[in-house]
Amino acid sequence: MMTFEGSHILSVSQFDREAISKILSISAQMAPYAMRQKRCHVLDGAILNNLFFEPSTRTRVSFGAAFNLLGGFVRETVGEENSSLAKGESLFDTARVISGYSDVIAMRHPQMHSVSEFAKGSSVPVINGGDGANEHPTQALLDLFTIQSEMKPHGKTLDGINMTLMGDLKHGRTVHSLSKLLSLYQNVKVTMIAPNALQMPDNVIATLEDAGHQVILSDKIEGNLACDVIYQTRIQQERFASPDEAELYRGHFSLNKEVYRQYCKNHTVIMHPLPRDSRPEANELDNDLNDLENLAIFRQAQNGVLVRMALFALTLGVEEKLSQYEKSVCWYSAKALSL
Amino acid sequence: MMTFEGSHILSVSQFDREAISKILSISAQMAPYAMRQKRCHVLDGAILNNLFFEPSTRTRVSFGAAFNLLGGFVRETVGEENSSLAKGESLFDTARVISGYSDVIAMRHPQMHSVSEFAKGSSVPVINGGDGANEHPTQALLDLFTIQSEMKPHGKTLDGINMTLMGDLKHGRTVHSLSKLLSLYQNVKVTMIAPNALQMPDNVIATLEDAGHQVILSDKIEGNLACDVIYQTRIQQERFASPDEAELYRGHFSLNKEVYRQYCKNHTVIMHPLPRDSRPEANELDNDLNDLENLAIFRQAQNGVLVRMALFALTLGVEEKLSQYEKSVCWYSAKALSL
Amino acid sequence: MMTFEGSHILSVSQFDREAISKILSISAQMAPYAMRQKRCHVLDGAILNNLFFEPSTRTRVSFGAAFNLLGGFVRETVGEENSSLAKGESLFDTARVISGYSDVIAMRHPQMHSVSEFAKGSSVPVINGGDGANEHPTQALLDLFTIQSEMKPHGKTLDGINMTLMGDLKHGRTVHSLSKLLSLYQNVKVTMIAPNALQMPDNVIATLEDAGHQVILSDKIEGNLACDVIYQTRIQQERFASPDEAELYRGHFSLNKEVYRQYCKNHTVIMHPLPRDSRPEANELDNDLNDLENLAIFRQAQNGVLVRMALFALTLGVEEKLSQYEKSVCWYSAKALSL
Repeated sequence: MMTFEGSHILSVSQFDREAISKILSISAQMAPYAMRQKRCHVLDGAILNNLFFEPSTRTRVSFGAAFNLLGGFVRETVGEENSSLAKGESLFDTARVISGYSDVIAMRHPQMHSVSEFAKGSSVPVINGGDGANEHPTQALLDLFTIQSEMKPHGKTLDGINMTLMGDLKHGRTVHSLSKLLSLYQNVKVTMIAPNALQMPDNVIATLEDAGHQVILSDKIEGNLACDVIYQTRIQQERFASPDEAELYRGHFSLNKEVYRQYCKNHTVIMHPLPRDSRPEANELDNDLNDLENLAIFRQAQNGVLVRMALFALTLGVEEKLSQYEKSVCWYSAKALSL
Repeated sequence: MMTFEGSHILSVSQFDREAISKILSISAQMAPYAMRQKRCHVLDGAILNNLFFEPSTRTRVSFGAAFNLLGGFVRETVGEENSSLAKGESLFDTARVISGYSDVIAMRHPQMHSVSEFAKGSSVPVINGGDGANEHPTQALLDLFTIQSEMKPHGKTLDGINMTLMGDLKHGRTVHSLSKLLSLYQNVKVTMIAPNALQMPDNVIATLEDAGHQVILSDKIEGNLACDVIYQTRIQQERFASPDEAELYRGHFSLNKEVYRQYCKNHTVIMHPLPRDSRPEANELDNDLNDLENLAIFRQAQNGVLVRMALFALTLGVEEKLSQYEKSVCWYSAKALSL
Repeated sequence: MMTFEGSHILSVSQFDREAISKILSISAQMAPYAMRQKRCHVLDGAILNNLFFEPSTRTRVSFGAAFNLLGGFVRETVGEENSSLAKGESLFDTARVISGYSDVIAMRHPQMHSVSEFAKGSSVPVINGGDGANEHPTQALLDLFTIQSEMKPHGKTLDGINMTLMGDLKHGRTVHSLSKLLSLYQNVKVTMIAPNALQMPDNVIATLEDAGHQVILSDKIEGNLACDVIYQTRIQQERFASPDEAELYRGHFSLNKEVYRQYCKNHTVIMHPLPRDSRPEANELDNDLNDLENLAIFRQAQNGVLVRMALFALTLGVEEKLSQYEKSVCWYSAKALSL
């Protein structure tokens, strides 16, 4: 199995099934800390540099909270115009310098492959928080963790899973990475529902088919939502070639209670990488689903903290030491009471 | 009395006299920590998400320092364009997600009622740091705390206080909230000095009068400054209907040493929510007052940390545990020496 | 010797040789903590307010990491438009308020003398992180620390050092401050290589000459690089009076492996305040030098953390207590292994 200690986390292609199993296992161990039943200070004194050269609230706060939840300090850089990168400094130089002030780095950058480029100059582990259209590996891992934990009460596992991916599959890096991870399992069925012009790229489909999985393509939801998990994504109007095309598909890929009742199974779980667009012209995931127990989107977002805590623990080699650094939580927490 | 533990702090209207008394009492208990005589780590490991969607330095830093002063970690989000709110995400969704990464949230947002809206989706206590023209409850509480502590040496209390509110009373949310809190006490006299067009709204005056207090309206300072406390506020030129009106009132509401000597009592205390505008065309609170002991504006700002520490302790249910989590301060502090 | 405890650090002119010796000595003591052999929590519970009204990544993160490395919390303000300064608040008022929320402040501001102005109102030590064209004292100190530590293996000290300063010496505040510090030593030789229009200001040259040191001025690199240390700086095209002049000097002040081999000594060390401009039209320090052991630029940047840790310890009076507050480092660190 790959060595996590001291390693960068840049791409889902780094992981085999064993490595993912390790990550998901450690992630589950983080739940009591995130739910405030107890707390862990194994990384007390450690420093994360959270470099978010591209704006994000959820992912940035999630990485920062994950590190604080292990007791560590967080230094943040938000936005590119504030950095020296504007003055012609290479990513390599920035990495050499900033890694000197860090124990680990999490980084998001608008350009593809920028994070790998940066990692070459870093003396500490770098975790890719998203590099443009390329990858967002921690999202893929938390998505996989979510599928696994949502299916557990139904006695199902990742092997044999029946997935539906929906929305803008052409541009969605989350569904690209998730598909690649799913291909590592057995007997997976993936139905891909998208406007024809926004269907999944061939290479992603090939990864699944080459691994022996069944892939179904469609531009209709009818008959395609009776699955274990629906992974919905946003379609941005600007992605359509023309306003006419946008108009043609308007509302055809929206999920709401009525669609769910008509086409889904009792146990069908709904996921979404968030944010969902609640404006009327988009509304891919209607608020009327908010009281549906199978709407997993917020448990999914919460799982992001568990996975990021796990990756910090693994890259810093402390995953076996968690229980040695525990303390009680002395403040009021509704989370702890909800368990 | 209201239950603080697990509660949101959204509006001054939540508090009766007993609740305020509790808040002010716990705030006073925080002084030794803020003045570095000793330190408290009761919230060691806890996470505050400081969401400042509208710029602020003082309030934001004050909330963050208050949480650090109890030993907790702070994650910050500054400015709205950096958040997912720009992509059509509802406040409810943002709250569901971010509260999963928090033990408590402090939030400022430019739109009225946005913080209450957000709080509906939050699984942790939300403290309103200011929601547009609506409310800024922690400012009102620190203002009340300041009046109480400034009056103590003179043997006066909030009951029977003789207040003067000055400046732009129409738009100033601080004086609106302060008036509502003052109405809970006994035998209060409030003189409101403002340009006619910027006088206090009727509903605020009514709150005081309905509670039996005396309210005097004026657009002149002469004869109206012989009180216990003057609460001065800034008048922004743009608030006047016309430049002529601005010109008419220019300088009429400025306080300086000469005005103080001429119209105030020996013990009259001056307060101001800050920032004060030191540019010549504004200058509502002249720098020549800086050496006046009764200029309370900086003690007032400092009290903000005490009140915010108290609210964090109360909403997280640790106000009875402070002394169990004390440590000494081993570094140099002029604050500790000033006591 | 000057008293550090409770003092501001505003200008290199505050320091005599003895004070600098103290700073460099404490800086060296910080190395085991920065290199993660062990950690120090002497400032556990203390609060640094990192006020960066002018963008910077390296200096800001360096100050923040330095404070975390001593166990303290960091509150940050980045950019001026977010502050109350836009609303006419004086630096004095901002200092009175923010220092109430701090144990120490580090500040960068685009205007000359702004930090000293601010410091007048602060109740806690203020460390100047750069005030416009005026000073950047911590950079000068880390530069001096670097020269000293780079020369140690060669049996050389700051006394008798043979320095070359290159680039835009007219506008470079780093070389101004460094020159002033060097003048405190004995028998220093400084060669200043710059385009004529960008040569070192007379007052800086005078400081060195009045202290008895030799100063050579040139606009050519030939024959001027056989020294102990070359301190290279960036020349910004906009600094030239005309594009013709820029064109005249293009590439004449660039350092690369070939120039090094031709003109430098075996032990000549190269320094640069960073960032270096890697774009072709600038490229004052070519990447082909990256594998040269004598390229000290990244050790130099790392030394910034040591010097800032030392200044925090000194101004907060804990420099004698470091060893009483040590803990082990339980996570993986390539830095510790590299020692």
